[in-house]
Amino acid sequence: MLIIGELINGMYKQVAAAIAGKDKKAIQGLARQQAENGANMLDVNVGPSSGNPQEAMKWLVETIQEAVEAPLCLDSTKPAVIEAGLKLAKKKALINSTTADDEKLNTLLPLAKRYNAGIIGLTMDKTGVPRDRYKRSEHALKIISSCMEQGMDLGDVYIDPIVLPVNVAQPQALEVLESLREFKVISDPPPKTVVGLSNVSQGTSERNLINRTFLVMAAAFGLGAAILDPLDKDLMDAMITAELILGKNIYCDSYLEAYRKK
Amino acid sequence: MLIIGELINGMYKQVAAAIAGKDKKAIQGLARQQAENGANMLDVNVGPSSGNPQEAMKWLVETIQEAVEAPLCLDSTKPAVIEAGLKLAKKKALINSTTADDEKLNTLLPLAKRYNAGIIGLTMDKTGVPRDRYKRSEHALKIISSCMEQGMDLGDVYIDPIVLPVNVAQPQALEVLESLREFKVISDPPPKTVVGLSNVSQGTSERNLINRTFLVMAAAFGLGAAILDPLDKDLMDAMITAELILGKNIYCDSYLEAYRKK
Repeated sequence: MLIIGELINGMYKQVAAAIAGKDKKAIQGLARQQAENGANMLDVNVGPSSGNPQEAMKWLVETIQEAVEAPLCLDSTKPAVIEAGLKLAKKKALINSTTADDEKLNTLLPLAKRYNAGIIGLTMDKTGVPRDRYKRSEHALKIISSCMEQGMDLGDVYIDPIVLPVNVAQPQALEVLESLREFKVISDPPPKTVVGLSNVSQGTSERNLINRTFLVMAAAFGLGAAILDPLDKDLMDAMITAELILGKNIYCDSYLEAYRKK
Repeated sequence: MLIIGELINGMYKQVAAAIAGKDKKAIQGLARQQAENGANMLDVNVGPSSGNPQEAMKWLVETIQEAVEAPLCLDSTKPAVIEAGLKLAKKKALINSTTADDEKLNTLLPLAKRYNAGIIGLTMDKTGVPRDRYKRSEHALKIISSCMEQGMDLGDVYIDPIVLPVNVAQPQALEVLESLREFKVISDPPPKTVVGLSNVSQGTSERNLINRTFLVMAAAFGLGAAILDPLDKDLMDAMITAELILGKNIYCDSYLEAYRKK
């Protein structure tokens, strides 16, 4: 499973402060910690409070790339902010994200092509997040066909069924899991899949337990990537063990350690 | 999920000693502890070393029933030992287990009918445990059709796809998971399903972590019952959380506690 570290996000107070104060050490520390604990890629989100989000994105990308080799997942609702990151990204980046709306697809897919980036497609549109797996598949199909029209490699497309908090949208959890399975038959080759994991436990009293339980289920339903907190050791242990059970790692008594050394 | 406590098993030294020494207190303690920690049913296995297994089964059933209300899962390869337990069981019992072999089915299904008991059907025969989901489904179909011929209620039939240790039969874990899903379309109504959970981690270095990770996956694939150690709190938390995500418990901040009080 591709692990995308979620911690460099201006939504978190300390990250917002580090961006505002140009505190390289703080950001690079977060980048290194995540990479050392199993993140294969790092999400970069300037957050809602940044005065000049394009400048903030540029500074974050440069700052992170000075510290780690990991590729970046450029996370913004503003195409100009994403492009500011794409221009500086040294490794193949991932755009986070487009929706199934034409204006989004028509702006972001050409950006992905131009900069040879991957893209996350959220199965939603202006009318909101679907309440069932069928509408999620419809949106996924729309995104995938747009990507094909634009000549994108489907291996670069990650469909996100949009995880909702279990405390307010409990029936959605199973819809999301079943969607992960259904996306596999949408195209050949199938698209990759990704979730923003921590949303499932937003506002709950047992965040870590709910996160890791949902991640294990999603892995069993074929999830390909997750945006999560790689510093949550129990979560990473659960993910590594799920992959063991699914035959993606070979068993040895020290399989947890072996995965981490990889 | 129906939780069948696994701890009263003569395979464990202390239980074997309690049986040999007619130590009621030890057995009743195990029975109470399991029931208090979420076991809905208790497995009863006299173990391999009992001199008179029928007498041992009788003593265990009587001893356990003096302490708890939970129904019993009578676990033996010998029909006479199972019948000794069935004769004394106050609540509807579960026979553990038949295979898909005719001689087993022809002996145990009439016993189940006579004593109004449920039965666990292992998807194996004399030739051994299947290596794939397809052969498991074949065995399941054979067991279910035999149960139907005998006029059993399919609600009383639990199909067990046979979990194997991940350290020696790693690809079997996914076959078992997929089997749980496939069993659901074998008959209408579908049979129930059950696994002997701890077998998945036999001989491994991370038993509890592997057990709970596999249980969460199996729950997502529709598992109906599990024979497990209810004293493993992390395992029970994982099971309760899996059922929450699957919409089987309603979310509240104290959902773990609420489940346990139920």
